[in-house]
Amino acid sequence: MITSNDNKHVKRVRELLSKHKARVTQSLFVVEGVKMTMEAEVSRIEEILMSESFYNEPSNKDVVERIASYGLSEESVYVVKDSVFASMSETRTPQGIMGVIKIVPRELDELFDDSRTPFIMVLEALQDPGNVGTIIRTAEGAGVTGIIMSADCVDLYNPKTVRSTMGALYRMKVYESKDLKGDILILKGRGVVTYAAHLQGENYYYEEDFKKPTCFFIGNEGNGLTDETAALADKYIKIPMEGHLESLNAAVASSVLMYETLRQRRMK
Amino acid sequence: MITSNDNKHVKRVRELLSKHKARVTQSLFVVEGVKMTMEAEVSRIEEILMSESFYNEPSNKDVVERIASYGLSEESVYVVKDSVFASMSETRTPQGIMGVIKIVPRELDELFDDSRTPFIMVLEALQDPGNVGTIIRTAEGAGVTGIIMSADCVDLYNPKTVRSTMGALYRMKVYESKDLKGDILILKGRGVVTYAAHLQGENYYYEEDFKKPTCFFIGNEGNGLTDETAALADKYIKIPMEGHLESLNAAVASSVLMYETLRQRRMK
Repeated sequence: MITSNDNKHVKRVRELLSKHKARVTQSLFVVEGVKMTMEAEVSRIEEILMSESFYNEPSNKDVVERIASYGLSEESVYVVKDSVFASMSETRTPQGIMGVIKIVPRELDELFDDSRTPFIMVLEALQDPGNVGTIIRTAEGAGVTGIIMSADCVDLYNPKTVRSTMGALYRMKVYESKDLKGDILILKGRGVVTYAAHLQGENYYYEEDFKKPTCFFIGNEGNGLTDETAALADKYIKIPMEGHLESLNAAVASSVLMYETLRQRRMK
Repeated sequence: MITSNDNKHVKRVRELLSKHKARVTQSLFVVEGVKMTMEAEVSRIEEILMSESFYNEPSNKDVVERIASYGLSEESVYVVKDSVFASMSETRTPQGIMGVIKIVPRELDELFDDSRTPFIMVLEALQDPGNVGTIIRTAEGAGVTGIIMSADCVDLYNPKTVRSTMGALYRMKVYESKDLKGDILILKGRGVVTYAAHLQGENYYYEEDFKKPTCFFIGNEGNGLTDETAALADKYIKIPMEGHLESLNAAVASSVLMYETLRQRRMK
Protein backbone atom coordinates (compact mmCIF):
# COMPACT_ATOMS: atom_id res chain seq x y z
CA MET A 1 0.00 0.00 0.00
CA ILE A 2 1.15 3.53 -0.80
CA THR A 3 1.22 5.56 2.43
CA SER A 4 3.42 8.54 1.53
CA ASN A 5 2.54 11.81 -0.16
CA ASP A 6 5.99 11.67 -1.71
CA ASN A 7 5.52 8.31 -3.43
CA LYS A 8 6.53 8.64 -7.10
CA HIS A 9 3.16 7.32 -8.39
CA VAL A 10 1.28 9.81 -6.24
CA LYS A 11 3.51 12.63 -7.41
CA ARG A 12 3.03 11.63 -11.03
CA VAL A 13 -0.78 11.67 -10.70
CA ARG A 14 -0.68 15.12 -9.15
CA GLU A 15 1.58 16.35 -11.93
CA LEU A 16 -0.59 14.82 -14.68
CA LEU A 17 -3.70 16.40 -13.18
CA SER A 18 -2.24 19.86 -12.80
CA LYS A 19 0.30 20.27 -15.63
CA HIS A 20 -0.41 20.33 -19.33
CA LYS A 21 3.28 19.88 -20.09
CA ALA A 22 3.51 16.72 -18.00
CA ARG A 23 0.60 15.22 -19.93
CA VAL A 24 2.21 16.06 -23.26
CA THR A 25 5.72 14.82 -22.45
CA GLN A 26 4.49 11.59 -20.81
CA SER A 27 1.55 11.03 -23.21
CA LEU A 28 -0.65 10.21 -20.22
CA PHE A 29 -3.70 11.68 -18.53
CA VAL A 30 -5.73 10.90 -15.41
CA VAL A 31 -9.40 9.96 -15.09
CA GLU A 32 -11.32 9.88 -11.81
CA GLY A 33 -14.21 7.73 -10.66
CA VAL A 34 -15.56 4.26 -11.35
CA LYS A 35 -17.30 5.11 -14.62
CA MET A 36 -14.35 6.83 -16.28
CA THR A 37 -11.81 4.31 -15.01
CA MET A 38 -13.81 1.21 -15.95
CA GLU A 39 -14.78 2.47 -19.40
CA ALA A 40 -11.12 2.76 -20.47
CA GLU A 41 -9.85 0.15 -22.92
CA VAL A 42 -7.54 -2.17 -21.01
CA SER A 43 -4.74 -1.66 -23.52
CA ARG A 44 -4.73 2.07 -22.72
CA ILE A 45 -4.47 1.66 -18.93
CA GLU A 46 -1.04 2.56 -17.57
CA GLU A 47 -2.01 2.38 -13.93
CA ILE A 48 -5.03 2.13 -11.59
CA LEU A 49 -5.01 3.61 -8.09
CA MET A 50 -7.64 2.86 -5.47
CA SER A 51 -8.07 4.35 -2.01
CA GLU A 52 -7.81 1.92 0.88
CA SER A 53 -11.46 2.30 1.82
CA PHE A 54 -12.60 1.92 -1.79
CA TYR A 55 -10.59 -1.28 -2.09
CA ASN A 56 -11.99 -2.73 1.12
CA GLU A 57 -15.61 -1.71 0.56
CA PRO A 58 -17.65 -4.91 -0.08
CA SER A 59 -19.89 -3.20 -2.65
CA ASN A 60 -16.82 -2.52 -4.81
CA LYS A 61 -15.95 -6.23 -5.01
CA ASP A 62 -17.10 -6.44 -8.64
CA VAL A 63 -14.90 -3.54 -9.68
CA VAL A 64 -11.85 -4.87 -7.84
CA GLU A 65 -12.34 -8.35 -9.36
CA ARG A 66 -12.76 -6.94 -12.84
CA ILE A 67 -9.54 -5.00 -12.48
CA ALA A 68 -7.77 -8.18 -11.31
CA SER A 69 -9.09 -9.98 -14.42
CA TYR A 70 -7.40 -7.39 -16.67
CA GLY A 71 -4.06 -9.11 -16.10
CA LEU A 72 -2.20 -5.83 -15.50
CA SER A 73 1.27 -6.11 -14.03
CA GLU A 74 1.83 -5.69 -10.29
CA GLU A 75 3.45 -2.34 -10.97
CA SER A 76 0.20 -1.05 -12.47
CA VAL A 77 -2.37 -1.42 -9.69
CA TYR A 78 -1.98 0.31 -6.33
CA VAL A 79 -3.94 0.74 -3.13
CA VAL A 80 -3.38 4.15 -1.58
CA LYS A 81 -3.92 5.34 1.99
CA ASP A 82 -7.16 7.40 2.11
CA SER A 83 -5.56 10.67 3.16
CA VAL A 84 -2.92 10.37 0.43
CA PHE A 85 -5.59 9.51 -2.14
CA ALA A 86 -7.67 12.55 -1.14
CA SER A 87 -4.61 14.79 -1.54
CA MET A 88 -4.19 13.63 -5.16
CA SER A 89 -7.78 14.05 -6.21
CA GLU A 90 -9.13 17.03 -8.14
CA THR A 91 -12.70 16.51 -6.91
CA ARG A 92 -14.17 17.53 -3.58
CA THR A 93 -15.66 14.10 -2.91
CA PRO A 94 -13.19 11.63 -4.45
CA GLN A 95 -14.78 8.38 -5.61
CA GLY A 96 -11.71 6.43 -4.49
CA ILE A 97 -10.51 5.23 -7.88
CA MET A 98 -8.36 6.79 -10.61
CA GLY A 99 -6.84 5.62 -13.84
CA VAL A 100 -3.68 6.81 -15.55
CA ILE A 101 -4.50 6.44 -19.23
CA LYS A 102 -2.33 6.49 -22.35
CA ILE A 103 -2.98 9.28 -24.83
CA VAL A 104 -3.44 7.94 -28.36
CA PRO A 105 -3.31 10.85 -30.82
CA ARG A 106 -5.67 10.70 -33.79
CA GLU A 107 -4.93 11.45 -37.41
CA LEU A 108 -7.23 13.47 -39.67
CA ASP A 109 -7.75 10.43 -41.90
CA GLU A 110 -9.35 8.48 -39.06
CA LEU A 111 -12.26 10.94 -39.01
CA PHE A 112 -13.28 9.59 -42.41
CA ASP A 113 -12.99 5.96 -41.41
CA ASP A 114 -16.73 5.74 -40.71
CA SER A 115 -19.72 4.36 -42.62
CA ARG A 116 -21.83 7.40 -41.72
CA THR A 117 -22.01 10.61 -43.74
CA PRO A 118 -19.22 12.89 -42.48
CA PHE A 119 -20.37 15.18 -39.66
CA ILE A 120 -17.46 17.13 -38.24
CA MET A 121 -17.09 19.88 -35.63
CA VAL A 122 -14.14 22.28 -35.84
CA LEU A 123 -13.35 23.97 -32.50
CA GLU A 124 -11.18 27.05 -32.70
CA ALA A 125 -9.47 28.47 -29.59
CA LEU A 126 -12.11 27.31 -27.11
CA GLN A 127 -10.83 28.12 -23.61
CA ASP A 128 -13.41 26.68 -21.22
CA PRO A 129 -12.72 23.01 -20.42
CA GLY A 130 -16.38 22.48 -19.48
CA ASN A 131 -17.47 23.73 -22.90
CA VAL A 132 -15.06 21.45 -24.77
CA GLY A 133 -16.05 18.43 -22.65
CA THR A 134 -19.75 19.15 -23.09
CA ILE A 135 -19.35 19.51 -26.86
CA ILE A 136 -17.58 16.12 -27.04
CA ARG A 137 -20.34 14.54 -24.92
CA THR A 138 -23.15 16.04 -26.99
CA ALA A 139 -21.32 15.22 -30.23
CA GLU A 140 -21.42 11.52 -29.44
CA GLY A 141 -25.18 11.78 -28.80
CA ALA A 142 -25.79 13.69 -32.01
CA GLY A 143 -23.84 11.25 -34.19
CA VAL A 144 -20.86 13.47 -34.97
CA THR A 145 -18.21 11.45 -36.81
CA GLY A 146 -15.20 13.47 -35.63
CA ILE A 147 -13.96 16.66 -33.99
CA ILE A 148 -11.03 18.85 -35.01
CA MET A 149 -9.51 21.07 -32.32
CA SER A 150 -7.16 23.93 -33.10
CA ALA A 151 -3.80 23.88 -31.28
CA ASP A 152 -4.81 26.92 -29.17
CA CYS A 153 -7.85 25.22 -27.61
CA VAL A 154 -7.78 24.28 -23.93
CA ASP A 155 -6.04 20.93 -23.33
CA LEU A 156 -8.28 18.00 -24.22
CA TYR A 157 -6.84 16.08 -21.28
CA ASN A 158 -7.41 18.82 -18.69
CA PRO A 159 -9.22 17.03 -15.81
CA LYS A 160 -12.26 19.31 -16.14
CA THR A 161 -12.56 18.58 -19.88
CA VAL A 162 -12.16 14.86 -19.26
CA ARG A 163 -14.86 14.89 -16.55
CA SER A 164 -17.34 16.88 -18.67
CA THR A 165 -17.15 14.36 -21.51
CA MET A 166 -18.79 11.72 -19.27
CA GLY A 167 -16.89 8.97 -21.10
CA ALA A 168 -17.47 10.24 -24.63
CA LEU A 169 -13.76 11.12 -24.73
CA TYR A 170 -12.96 7.42 -25.16
CA ARG A 171 -15.36 6.98 -28.07
CA MET A 172 -15.33 10.26 -30.00
CA LYS A 173 -12.55 10.77 -32.53
CA VAL A 174 -10.92 14.06 -31.57
CA TYR A 175 -8.05 15.19 -33.77
CA GLU A 176 -5.75 17.94 -32.50
CA SER A 177 -4.78 19.95 -35.57
CA LYS A 178 -1.47 21.73 -35.91
CA ASP A 179 -2.56 23.38 -39.15
CA LEU A 180 -6.23 24.28 -38.93
CA LYS A 181 -6.40 26.05 -42.27
CA GLY A 182 -4.68 23.19 -44.10
CA ASP A 183 -6.91 20.61 -42.46
CA ILE A 184 -10.07 22.55 -43.29
CA LEU A 185 -8.97 22.71 -46.93
CA ILE A 186 -8.56 18.91 -46.88
CA LEU A 187 -12.11 18.54 -45.52
CA LYS A 188 -13.45 20.79 -48.25
CA GLY A 189 -11.49 18.85 -50.85
CA ARG A 190 -13.30 15.74 -49.70
CA GLY A 191 -16.68 17.34 -50.35
CA VAL A 192 -17.61 18.38 -46.82
CA VAL A 193 -19.76 21.53 -46.73
CA THR A 194 -18.39 23.91 -44.08
CA TYR A 195 -20.62 26.27 -42.07
CA ALA A 196 -19.68 29.09 -39.71
CA ALA A 197 -22.22 30.33 -37.19
CA HIS A 198 -21.97 34.05 -37.75
CA LEU A 199 -23.98 37.18 -37.03
CA GLN A 200 -23.71 38.03 -40.73
CA GLY A 201 -25.20 34.69 -41.72
CA GLU A 202 -27.48 34.69 -44.72
CA ASN A 203 -29.83 31.86 -43.75
CA TYR A 204 -31.00 30.51 -40.44
CA TYR A 205 -29.33 27.23 -39.63
CA TYR A 206 -32.58 25.26 -39.99
CA GLU A 207 -32.93 26.42 -43.60
CA GLU A 208 -29.82 24.50 -44.66
CA ASP A 209 -29.51 20.83 -45.68
CA PHE A 210 -27.26 18.98 -43.25
CA LYS A 211 -27.95 15.55 -44.71
CA LYS A 212 -24.91 16.18 -46.92
CA PRO A 213 -21.38 15.86 -45.50
CA THR A 214 -21.38 18.71 -42.97
CA CYS A 215 -18.89 20.57 -40.83
CA PHE A 216 -19.53 23.39 -38.33
CA PHE A 217 -16.89 25.88 -37.17
CA ILE A 218 -17.22 26.92 -33.51
CA GLY A 219 -15.17 29.89 -32.28
CA ASN A 220 -13.71 31.16 -29.04
CA GLU A 221 -16.16 32.00 -26.21
CA GLY A 222 -15.42 35.71 -26.14
CA ASN A 223 -14.25 36.54 -29.64
CA GLY A 224 -15.86 34.00 -31.95
CA LEU A 225 -14.03 32.67 -34.99
CA THR A 226 -10.92 34.35 -36.33
CA ASP A 227 -11.52 36.14 -39.64
CA GLU A 228 -9.10 33.75 -41.31
CA THR A 229 -11.04 30.65 -40.27
CA ALA A 230 -14.47 32.20 -40.87
CA ALA A 231 -13.33 33.06 -44.42
CA LEU A 232 -12.81 29.34 -45.13
CA ALA A 233 -16.48 28.50 -44.51
CA ASP A 234 -18.65 27.74 -47.53
CA LYS A 235 -21.64 29.39 -45.84
CA TYR A 236 -22.40 31.66 -42.91
CA ILE A 237 -25.49 30.64 -40.95
CA LYS A 238 -27.40 32.41 -38.19
CA ILE A 239 -28.86 31.05 -34.98
CA PRO A 240 -31.87 33.28 -34.20
CA MET A 241 -31.88 35.05 -30.84
CA GLU A 242 -34.92 36.66 -29.27
CA GLY A 243 -34.66 39.26 -26.51
CA HIS A 244 -31.52 41.29 -25.93
CA LEU A 245 -29.01 38.49 -25.75
CA GLU A 246 -25.62 39.10 -27.37
CA SER A 247 -24.64 35.47 -27.84
CA LEU A 248 -25.22 31.88 -26.82
CA ASN A 249 -22.76 29.80 -24.83
CA ALA A 250 -20.40 27.96 -27.23
CA ALA A 251 -21.51 24.51 -26.07
CA VAL A 252 -25.17 25.51 -26.42
CA ALA A 253 -24.70 26.91 -29.94
CA SER A 254 -22.83 23.72 -30.90
CA SER A 255 -25.59 21.55 -29.44
CA VAL A 256 -28.32 23.38 -31.33
CA LEU A 257 -26.46 22.88 -34.63
CA MET A 258 -25.53 19.26 -33.92
CA TYR A 259 -29.06 18.25 -32.93
CA GLU A 260 -30.61 20.00 -35.94
CA THR A 261 -28.27 17.89 -38.09
CA LEU A 262 -29.32 14.70 -36.33
CA ARG A 263 -33.00 15.70 -36.65
CA GLN A 264 -32.65 16.22 -40.40
CA ARG A 265 -30.74 12.97 -40.87
CA ARG A 266 -33.34 10.97 -38.93
CA MET A 267 -36.48 12.51 -40.45
CA LYS A 268 -37.77 10.67 -43.46
CA MET B 1 -12.96 55.75 0.17
CA ILE B 2 -13.36 52.39 1.89
CA THR B 3 -9.93 51.18 3.03
CA SER B 4 -10.76 48.51 5.58
CA ASN B 5 -11.59 44.86 5.13
CA ASP B 6 -13.92 45.23 8.12
CA ASN B 7 -16.05 47.98 6.61
CA LYS B 8 -19.71 47.03 6.92
CA HIS B 9 -20.40 47.41 3.18
CA VAL B 10 -17.46 45.18 2.33
CA LYS B 11 -18.58 42.60 4.86
CA ARG B 12 -22.10 42.67 3.47
CA VAL B 13 -20.90 42.04 -0.10
CA ARG B 14 -18.84 39.08 1.07
CA GLU B 15 -21.81 37.69 2.95
CA LEU B 16 -24.19 38.16 0.01
CA LEU B 17 -21.74 36.42 -2.34
CA SER B 18 -21.11 33.44 -0.10
CA LYS B 19 -24.34 32.88 1.87
CA HIS B 20 -27.70 31.88 0.48
CA LYS B 21 -29.39 32.79 3.76
CA ALA B 22 -28.00 36.34 3.71
CA ARG B 23 -29.44 36.83 0.20
CA VAL B 24 -32.85 35.58 1.30
CA THR B 25 -33.11 37.56 4.54
CA GLN B 26 -31.83 40.80 2.98
CA SER B 27 -33.52 40.30 -0.41
CA LEU B 28 -30.29 41.36 -2.12
CA PHE B 29 -27.70 39.80 -4.40
CA VAL B 30 -24.40 40.87 -5.91
CA VAL B 31 -23.40 41.20 -9.56
CA GLU B 32 -19.82 41.66 -10.80
CA GLY B 33 -18.45 43.46 -13.81
CA VAL B 34 -19.40 46.40 -16.00
CA LYS B 35 -21.96 44.56 -18.09
CA MET B 36 -23.95 43.06 -15.22
CA THR B 37 -23.75 46.22 -13.09
CA MET B 38 -24.74 48.64 -15.86
CA GLU B 39 -27.59 46.48 -17.18
CA ALA B 40 -29.41 46.61 -13.82
CA GLU B 41 -32.51 48.80 -13.64
CA VAL B 42 -31.63 51.85 -11.57
CA SER B 43 -34.61 51.29 -9.26
CA ARG B 44 -33.17 47.89 -8.28
CA ILE B 45 -29.70 49.17 -7.39
CA GLU B 46 -29.02 49.20 -3.67
CA GLU B 47 -25.35 50.01 -3.93
CA ILE B 48 -22.47 50.25 -6.41
CA LEU B 49 -18.86 49.62 -5.40
CA MET B 50 -15.87 50.46 -7.58
CA SER B 51 -12.20 49.72 -6.99
CA GLU B 52 -9.94 52.74 -6.72
CA SER B 53 -8.11 51.95 -9.96
CA PHE B 54 -11.38 51.29 -11.83
CA TYR B 55 -12.70 54.67 -10.65
CA ASN B 56 -9.57 56.53 -11.69
CA GLU B 57 -9.08 54.80 -15.03
CA PRO B 58 -9.76 57.36 -17.80
CA SER B 59 -11.39 54.77 -20.08
CA ASN B 60 -14.06 54.17 -17.40
CA LYS B 61 -15.12 57.82 -17.41
CA ASP B 62 -18.36 57.03 -19.26
CA VAL B 63 -19.35 54.40 -16.73
CA VAL B 64 -18.55 56.62 -13.74
CA GLU B 65 -20.49 59.52 -15.27
CA ARG B 66 -23.47 57.33 -16.05
CA ILE B 67 -23.54 56.12 -12.45
CA ALA B 68 -23.40 59.73 -11.24
CA SER B 69 -26.38 60.52 -13.48
CA TYR B 70 -28.48 57.84 -11.75
CA GLY B 71 -29.05 60.20 -8.80
CA LEU B 72 -28.30 57.51 -6.21
CA SER B 73 -27.75 58.72 -2.65
CA GLU B 74 -24.23 59.23 -1.31
CA GLU B 75 -24.65 56.15 0.84
CA SER B 76 -25.09 54.03 -2.29
CA VAL B 77 -21.90 54.55 -4.27
CA TYR B 78 -18.47 53.69 -2.89
CA VAL B 79 -14.89 53.65 -4.05
CA VAL B 80 -12.92 50.82 -2.46
CA LYS B 81 -9.17 50.41 -2.03
CA ASP B 82 -7.93 47.89 -4.65
CA SER B 83 -6.72 45.24 -2.21
CA VAL B 84 -10.01 45.38 -0.28
CA PHE B 85 -11.98 45.17 -3.51
CA ALA B 86 -10.01 42.12 -4.63
CA SER B 87 -10.70 40.41 -1.31
CA MET B 88 -14.47 40.81 -1.85
CA SER B 89 -14.55 39.53 -5.40
CA GLU B 90 -15.55 36.01 -6.42
CA THR B 91 -13.65 36.17 -9.70
CA ARG B 92 -9.94 35.69 -10.24
CA THR B 93 -9.57 38.84 -12.31
CA PRO B 94 -12.05 41.30 -10.77
CA GLN B 95 -13.36 43.87 -13.22
CA GLY B 96 -13.35 46.53 -10.50
CA ILE B 97 -17.10 47.14 -10.27
CA MET B 98 -19.92 45.41 -8.39
CA GLY B 99 -23.58 46.09 -7.84
CA VAL B 100 -25.73 45.12 -4.86
CA ILE B 101 -29.12 44.50 -6.45
CA LYS B 102 -32.61 44.16 -4.95
CA ILE B 103 -34.33 40.81 -5.45
CA VAL B 104 -37.83 41.26 -6.87
CA PRO B 105 -39.68 37.93 -6.56
CA ARG B 106 -42.01 36.99 -9.43
CA GLU B 107 -45.53 35.60 -9.23
CA LEU B 108 -46.78 32.74 -11.43
CA ASP B 109 -49.35 35.07 -13.02
CA GLU B 110 -46.58 37.29 -14.42
CA LEU B 111 -45.45 34.43 -16.66
CA PHE B 112 -48.70 34.79 -18.59
CA ASP B 113 -48.44 38.56 -18.92
CA ASP B 114 -46.96 38.27 -22.41
CA SER B 115 -48.33 38.64 -25.93
CA ARG B 116 -46.44 35.54 -27.12
CA THR B 117 -47.76 31.98 -26.98
CA PRO B 118 -46.79 30.56 -23.56
CA PHE B 119 -43.42 28.80 -23.63
CA ILE B 120 -42.38 27.74 -20.15
CA MET B 121 -39.48 25.76 -18.69
CA VAL B 122 -39.94 23.93 -15.38
CA LEU B 123 -36.63 23.19 -13.61
CA GLU B 124 -36.78 20.57 -10.89
CA ALA B 125 -33.96 20.21 -8.36
CA LEU B 126 -31.17 21.41 -10.67
CA GLN B 127 -27.98 21.63 -8.59
CA ASP B 128 -25.36 23.07 -10.93
CA PRO B 129 -25.40 26.89 -10.91
CA GLY B 130 -23.75 26.95 -14.36
CA ASN B 131 -26.54 24.82 -15.80
CA VAL B 132 -29.29 27.01 -14.34
CA GLY B 133 -27.57 30.19 -15.53
CA THR B 134 -27.00 28.76 -19.01
CA ILE B 135 -30.64 27.66 -19.27
CA ILE B 136 -31.82 31.18 -18.35
CA ARG B 137 -29.44 32.68 -20.94
CA THR B 138 -30.52 30.27 -23.69
CA ALA B 139 -34.18 30.67 -22.73
CA GLU B 140 -34.04 34.38 -23.50
CA GLY B 141 -32.52 33.60 -26.90
CA ALA B 142 -35.14 30.96 -27.69
CA GLY B 143 -38.10 33.16 -26.78
CA VAL B 144 -39.13 31.38 -23.58
CA THR B 145 -41.86 33.38 -21.83
CA GLY B 146 -41.06 32.23 -18.29
CA ILE B 147 -39.21 29.76 -16.09
CA ILE B 148 -40.49 27.96 -13.00
CA MET B 149 -37.86 26.69 -10.54
CA SER B 150 -38.63 24.19 -7.80
CA ALA B 151 -37.69 25.23 -4.27
CA ASP B 152 -34.91 22.62 -4.17
CA CYS B 153 -33.00 24.05 -7.15
CA VAL B 154 -29.68 25.79 -6.57
CA ASP B 155 -30.10 29.44 -5.55
CA LEU B 156 -30.96 31.65 -8.52
CA TYR B 157 -28.81 34.41 -6.98
CA ASN B 158 -25.73 32.26 -6.41
CA PRO B 159 -22.86 34.27 -7.98
CA LYS B 160 -22.08 31.47 -10.46
CA THR B 161 -25.70 31.30 -11.61
CA VAL B 162 -25.86 35.08 -11.95
CA ARG B 163 -22.64 35.16 -14.00
CA SER B 164 -23.73 32.35 -16.34
CA THR B 165 -26.96 34.17 -17.26
CA MET B 166 -24.89 36.91 -18.98
CA GLY B 167 -27.56 39.48 -18.13
CA ALA B 168 -30.59 37.38 -19.08
CA LEU B 169 -31.40 37.18 -15.35
CA TYR B 170 -32.65 40.77 -15.48
CA ARG B 171 -34.95 40.13 -18.41
CA MET B 172 -36.22 36.55 -18.06
CA LYS B 173 -39.19 35.99 -15.75
CA VAL B 174 -38.07 33.33 -13.30
CA TYR B 175 -40.64 32.27 -10.72
CA GLU B 176 -39.48 30.33 -7.66
CA SER B 177 -42.26 27.88 -6.88
CA LYS B 178 -43.04 26.69 -3.37
CA ASP B 179 -45.60 24.18 -4.67
CA LEU B 180 -44.37 22.74 -7.95
CA LYS B 181 -47.22 20.25 -8.36
CA GLY B 182 -49.88 22.89 -7.68
CA ASP B 183 -48.25 25.34 -10.08
CA ILE B 184 -47.96 22.73 -12.85
CA LEU B 185 -51.67 21.97 -12.44
CA ILE B 186 -52.40 25.69 -12.87
CA LEU B 187 -50.32 25.72 -16.10
CA LYS B 188 -52.24 22.73 -17.41
CA GLY B 189 -55.55 24.35 -16.46
CA ARG B 190 -54.56 27.27 -18.66
CA GLY B 191 -54.11 25.01 -21.67
CA VAL B 192 -50.33 24.63 -21.65
CA VAL B 193 -49.20 21.23 -23.00
CA THR B 194 -46.56 19.79 -20.66
CA TYR B 195 -43.70 17.58 -21.89
CA ALA B 196 -41.17 15.55 -19.93
CA ALA B 197 -37.94 14.47 -21.60
CA HIS B 198 -37.89 10.82 -20.64
CA LEU B 199 -36.16 7.64 -21.73
CA GLN B 200 -39.61 6.02 -21.99
CA GLY B 201 -40.82 8.74 -24.34
CA GLU B 202 -43.15 7.67 -27.10
CA ASN B 203 -42.20 10.20 -29.78
CA TYR B 204 -39.00 12.03 -30.57
CA TYR B 205 -39.20 15.66 -29.53
CA TYR B 206 -39.15 16.89 -33.14
CA GLU B 207 -42.31 14.92 -33.93
CA GLU B 208 -44.39 17.09 -31.57
CA ASP B 209 -46.08 20.42 -32.28
CA PHE B 210 -44.60 23.12 -30.07
CA LYS B 211 -46.44 25.97 -31.76
CA LYS B 212 -49.15 25.43 -29.14
CA PRO B 213 -48.64 26.68 -25.56
CA THR B 214 -45.72 24.50 -24.47
CA CYS B 215 -43.91 23.62 -21.26
CA PHE B 216 -40.87 21.35 -20.77
CA PHE B 217 -39.95 19.69 -17.47
CA ILE B 218 -36.17 19.44 -16.86
CA GLY B 219 -34.96 17.23 -14.01
CA ASN B 220 -31.96 17.00 -11.72
CA GLU B 221 -28.54 16.40 -13.33
CA GLY B 222 -27.97 12.98 -11.78
CA ASN B 223 -31.45 11.61 -11.15
CA GLY B 224 -33.73 13.23 -13.70
CA LEU B 225 -37.32 14.17 -12.83
CA THR B 226 -39.02 12.80 -9.72
CA ASP B 227 -41.73 10.25 -10.53
CA GLU B 228 -44.31 12.61 -9.06
CA THR B 229 -43.40 15.45 -11.41
CA ALA B 230 -42.92 13.22 -14.46
CA ALA B 231 -46.42 11.82 -13.87
CA LEU B 232 -47.87 15.33 -14.30
CA ALA B 233 -46.59 15.61 -17.89
CA ASP B 234 -49.12 15.30 -20.72
CA LYS B 235 -46.51 13.57 -22.89
CA TYR B 236 -43.14 11.91 -22.58
CA ILE B 237 -40.73 12.77 -25.37
CA LYS B 238 -37.34 11.33 -26.29
CA ILE B 239 -34.17 13.10 -27.39
CA PRO B 240 -32.35 10.60 -29.62
CA MET B 241 -28.84 9.62 -28.61
CA GLU B 242 -26.35 7.89 -30.87
CA GLY B 243 -23.32 6.03 -29.51
CA HIS B 244 -23.14 4.80 -25.96
CA LEU B 245 -24.02 7.98 -24.14
CA GLU B 246 -26.27 7.65 -21.08
CA SER B 247 -27.57 11.20 -21.01
CA LEU B 248 -27.08 14.76 -22.17
CA ASN B 249 -26.09 17.62 -19.90
CA ALA B 250 -29.26 19.27 -18.48
CA ALA B 251 -28.51 22.64 -20.08
CA VAL B 252 -27.83 20.96 -23.44
CA ALA B 253 -31.07 18.92 -23.34
CA SER B 254 -32.96 22.11 -22.45
CA SER B 255 -31.31 24.01 -25.28
CA VAL B 256 -32.16 21.36 -27.87
CA LEU B 257 -35.85 21.45 -26.82
CA MET B 258 -36.01 25.23 -26.59
CA TYR B 259 -34.43 25.80 -30.00
CA GLU B 260 -36.64 23.19 -31.66
CA THR B 261 -39.62 25.13 -30.30
CA LEU B 262 -38.25 28.40 -31.68
CA ARG B 263 -37.54 26.73 -35.02
CA GLN B 264 -41.11 25.46 -35.30
CA ARG B 265 -42.58 28.80 -34.29
CA ARG B 266 -40.46 30.68 -36.84
CA MET B 267 -40.94 28.32 -39.79
CA LYS B 268 -43.83 29.21 -42.03
